[in-house]
Amino acid sequence: MNQTQQALPTSFPPDFTAGYGQGNLALAQINTTPGDLAGNARKIMAALRLAEQQQVDLVIFPELALMGYPPRDVIVRHPFLVTENLKWLEGIAQNTGQTYALVGFVEPRLPKPSEKRIGKTAFNAAALLGEGKIQAIFRKSLIPGYNEFEDYRQFESSPVSGAIGQEWLTDVTLNPPLQGGQGLITVHGHRYAVSICEDLWNDPEFFEHPHYPHNPIEGLMAQGPQALINLSSSPSRSGKEAVRHQLCAHVAQKHGTPLVYINQVGTVDELAFDGGSRAYNAQGQLFSRAESFQEQLLIINPLKGQGRIAPLPGDQATETTDASASPCLQPPAFQAYDTADLARTYQSLLQGIRDYFAKTGFQKAVLGLSGGLDSAVVAVLVADALGPENLLTVSMPSAITPDENRRDAQAIAENLGCPWVEIPIGAITNAFTQEFGTVRTSLEAFWGPTDARSNAADNVQAISRATILRQLGNEFRALPVATSDKSEFYLGYATVNGDMSGALAPIGDVCKTKVRALARWLNEHRPATLKTPRNVLPASVITKPSGADLKRDPQTGVLVTAETELMPYEFADEVIWRLETLNQSHAQMLETPFSYEQQHPITPDQKVEWLNKFFDRMSKAVFKWFVAPPILITDGGGSIAKSDYHHPIVANRIRWQGHTPSEIQTLLTKSHDR
Amino acid sequence: MNQTQQALPTSFPPDFTAGYGQGNLALAQINTTPGDLAGNARKIMAALRLAEQQQVDLVIFPELALMGYPPRDVIVRHPFLVTENLKWLEGIAQNTGQTYALVGFVEPRLPKPSEKRIGKTAFNAAALLGEGKIQAIFRKSLIPGYNEFEDYRQFESSPVSGAIGQEWLTDVTLNPPLQGGQGLITVHGHRYAVSICEDLWNDPEFFEHPHYPHNPIEGLMAQGPQALINLSSSPSRSGKEAVRHQLCAHVAQKHGTPLVYINQVGTVDELAFDGGSRAYNAQGQLFSRAESFQEQLLIINPLKGQGRIAPLPGDQATETTDASASPCLQPPAFQAYDTADLARTYQSLLQGIRDYFAKTGFQKAVLGLSGGLDSAVVAVLVADALGPENLLTVSMPSAITPDENRRDAQAIAENLGCPWVEIPIGAITNAFTQEFGTVRTSLEAFWGPTDARSNAADNVQAISRATILRQLGNEFRALPVATSDKSEFYLGYATVNGDMSGALAPIGDVCKTKVRALARWLNEHRPATLKTPRNVLPASVITKPSGADLKRDPQTGVLVTAETELMPYEFADEVIWRLETLNQSHAQMLETPFSYEQQHPITPDQKVEWLNKFFDRMSKAVFKWFVAPPILITDGGGSIAKSDYHHPIVANRIRWQGHTPSEIQTLLTKSHDR
Repeated sequence: MNQTQQALPTSFPPDFTAGYGQGNLALAQINTTPGDLAGNARKIMAALRLAEQQQVDLVIFPELALMGYPPRDVIVRHPFLVTENLKWLEGIAQNTGQTYALVGFVEPRLPKPSEKRIGKTAFNAAALLGEGKIQAIFRKSLIPGYNEFEDYRQFESSPVSGAIGQEWLTDVTLNPPLQGGQGLITVHGHRYAVSICEDLWNDPEFFEHPHYPHNPIEGLMAQGPQALINLSSSPSRSGKEAVRHQLCAHVAQKHGTPLVYINQVGTVDELAFDGGSRAYNAQGQLFSRAESFQEQLLIINPLKGQGRIAPLPGDQATETTDASASPCLQPPAFQAYDTADLARTYQSLLQGIRDYFAKTGFQKAVLGLSGGLDSAVVAVLVADALGPENLLTVSMPSAITPDENRRDAQAIAENLGCPWVEIPIGAITNAFTQEFGTVRTSLEAFWGPTDARSNAADNVQAISRATILRQLGNEFRALPVATSDKSEFYLGYATVNGDMSGALAPIGDVCKTKVRALARWLNEHRPATLKTPRNVLPASVITKPSGADLKRDPQTGVLVTAETELMPYEFADEVIWRLETLNQSHAQMLETPFSYEQQHPITPDQKVEWLNKFFDRMSKAVFKWFVAPPILITDGGGSIAKSDYHHPIVANRIRWQGHTPSEIQTLLTKSHDR
Repeated sequence: MNQTQQALPTSFPPDFTAGYGQGNLALAQINTTPGDLAGNARKIMAALRLAEQQQVDLVIFPELALMGYPPRDVIVRHPFLVTENLKWLEGIAQNTGQTYALVGFVEPRLPKPSEKRIGKTAFNAAALLGEGKIQAIFRKSLIPGYNEFEDYRQFESSPVSGAIGQEWLTDVTLNPPLQGGQGLITVHGHRYAVSICEDLWNDPEFFEHPHYPHNPIEGLMAQGPQALINLSSSPSRSGKEAVRHQLCAHVAQKHGTPLVYINQVGTVDELAFDGGSRAYNAQGQLFSRAESFQEQLLIINPLKGQGRIAPLPGDQATETTDASASPCLQPPAFQAYDTADLARTYQSLLQGIRDYFAKTGFQKAVLGLSGGLDSAVVAVLVADALGPENLLTVSMPSAITPDENRRDAQAIAENLGCPWVEIPIGAITNAFTQEFGTVRTSLEAFWGPTDARSNAADNVQAISRATILRQLGNEFRALPVATSDKSEFYLGYATVNGDMSGALAPIGDVCKTKVRALARWLNEHRPATLKTPRNVLPASVITKPSGADLKRDPQTGVLVTAETELMPYEFADEVIWRLETLNQSHAQMLETPFSYEQQHPITPDQKVEWLNKFFDRMSKAVFKWFVAPPILITDGGGSIAKSDYHHPIVANRIRWQGHTPSEIQTLLTKSHDR
């Protein structure tokens, strides 16, 4: 056994009978990297050899396993990668024998000599490999282009589903499709239908608003396969597991046909793929499921309904395993802030940090530890992901930093077992202030007095800290990590080149109230094998009011907290939830009572003021979203991660409160008469 | 006349005859802002009133003029904006009389009560308004999703072209379509076909590889309109003008029908729309064209072939006005670096800077002026865009900054008439260095010696400068501007939070050799009304070798230039051109001689070394692209601007040199046997 094989844990059904023709399938839930053809191919070969040892009929890999998903525009600008991926596919095919393999790859669209190519240059495809050859290919029909998906930019929609012949794929040797009904494949005597990811996600009975007019599964199921196979690369988001489970159960039950769903694992920049590959019987009951957030080779038998069921992250009660094929759920009511799946959030963020560092080739991280909530939670996440010895925590106090915060920071580092140093920033910020002082007068003479509302002094502190971290990172080949959370990104309460800068923003899609809940969860639920598994965070870190510790109130001398400057985070986080999950307008939010209002009665004026402030700040925060580092997407409703949401920076004159028709008439007429 | 009207210059045909029924049309080439419904509607009303004064039959606005193009995902997450835009559309309609108006808007897709909505929530649509009512609507069929376009994220494709009735549009009062043949409209006795942007861009005779299987223009033309109208929001890129002209000429000539093409003007973040609205007669000859990069109301008569032709930017010989309908051009041979359209580049960047500041609500900019090429060119661009009094230039010398550079910087500021201050960074960088010194030993004891190749010292200088600029920006409500060029972005030769940071990267899509050509062009071609219109840049700024002035060679004490560290920019820029324009691979570049090689014979080993270095650095530079500020797109082949090109950061293990099939077999087998 080689290292790669050892790294892929294998799970067998309890009553497993080895041997070809039994209908045993292996789901190779692997973690690939876009563009790393050699690395991905090695993982594919290792899983294939494992499956062969068990005489499994067919080993199935996730969507685009060979190229890595999502390739994004890399394959458009660098078409040689598509040519290369065909060479690797052919190479893997030559190494197959009786164990067949379904391998996702990028199929170039090569028109016949007399034809024009219409549309994009590639299909999102999969190949059936076996007996040393490419036996058949399958193409994705439904090409998503919403939220984090952009297959539409690179892939043409296939007008046909199921196995197809060698049209256009002229560069590789391709045999006619196997026997077994048009569009089906027969492997060791059993007939399977094969579909790719989104093709499963358009059932018009399940979804209130299908994305596409056509449901490719219908045509495949009409041919009577013994099981439907779906190759996916389907990201994890809060609440997604319930929808995925219900959809799979619905499709299997509706067609009375077992469903085998294979999903990739691993994080690519902002997108977390959670694995959880699974199989359902003809009654829509789950009979096997792989681990979440781990590579695994799961062996199942859909004909016999055999396989093991791995638990979902955290408390199972929070993630449904009910096989009832109910239609897509309505969004749940707001609870500050969706704390139901903290175990999934933790694992998702851990994988995101680990994969980002591993895939970019870094082992070490540096982090500013203020003693506040956000940096404390990020420290735990990074230490758990990379190992505490690989995280350098740095306290960078200024003259106004409370002693309590410095003590808390040190306590967190000690609890984690991380190296910790203190670097005061006073001398640095003084140097900036002094240099500015030398030019202030001449500039004020020219440009008038400085902006009284300027945050320059606060920002220089935050940027100086980020500069120290970057300097340490450069010197020790470590990546600085950003600590801004989702509420701060929405409210623009983050400093460009300061606390929001870094190689990665692990909690940029976690709202403040959820960060707080996550902190409590971390104190209770981290693995017992870790140093200080319980109460790694001092209670004061969780309970103290959030603030950037950047300024004191000039009257009272008290440190200005974030909620004093902004609004209660519980209120702001509900605005975010209503925006992302319900797509509510300012007016709709004003009309419907907030959960916050049930606890804390506020006047209508107060609500209007906070809503106006939120929308105004959000309009101006869009620039910060644009220059933010990758944000690990984890929330269900939406995010401001760049691969998920696009908002022009100059679209900041939106009147969020709307206009009445009569106001509009007045404005239109006034503009003319003026 | 109000201010808005005065701001919209009007151009009439030489032999213009006013009066309804003459077939006079007004092309309202306006500059809109996404989401600014009130502002956009005011511009629409002002143009409508101007057109009414001339008794023009129909005034035509660009694609999505009311909502602003591109709205991106704002209308998906904030659907109330779509409802609002209908209210404004209705309001404008109520203000129309005999002068009809074609206004682009976002049409919500409202299924009938018994139906499900399938697909996206909106159409990219236009409405014919007149006599106080919405008379007809038109929907875009071809929905682009490549390069800078992402209509597919928000808009459903319309299965029909031409004028349609009130299906789904149930929220506004909509009359039946006007008479005049199915899908055509009749206005004051003349029949017109109406299409939106991309619907014009799929002629299978013109394009070698059409994007879509269907050409909506065929069906419209078959109905015999007297002219085809196209509402566009079509960005300017180098070489685009020639393609646009040839396509329009081809379509008009092929169908023997006049073509009226209206394009928006103005920049939205990274996308520059250049206007240049125009009309062709039935023989495919251009008979009218609006100004480029300026708002204008152009009055034409397509039935009589009447209108004025405004010049294109710069030397007309460089932009074809030939009416021959030749098919889409092959990419031109490389000339370092595509200097043919410097006048267009200048105007495009000027508009980009001006609109970014105006639309985000800023008047003033701050810029670090090093005395080097990039910051010098950016200074000229910003001063010309905002006025020299609104640009604060700052020299921030370190101990190693040559006196020549400080003198050059000051000379540029004086030539431009900009305020200029000098702020040395020595005290600041010393403070960083000293603080690092206090922890170095303890960290080295834990993590081993610092990275000998570390750029920490260089980066601290660059970040300190950017921090000073941000501090000044905060104090005086001014935006700092990034100075990194396209070659630097490709080679990762830019400091995160340093020279590449800022609110906007004006030359982030201009390669170094083109920046140099642009510098020479600026010295010759700026408007005579400016202070120092000729030779604003000292000759030494243009001829000195490029470098970041961040370090000296430890042996020689000479400042390290960029080309010493990297490779000649002429070579690197040709690699970029081959990547973006020809999509060549490493192997293809090795096989075909570079222009650079004709001038400077190099060994094959040298070429391999430079290519390897380029591709290696590019793989690691992707993170810098991700956190870069908006880049003004100007190059024809491609860019690394975020709205144009998506490349996963973790996709950095690509073996750009490829593998042979036998290498692949060895690697696959080795991975198994190991």
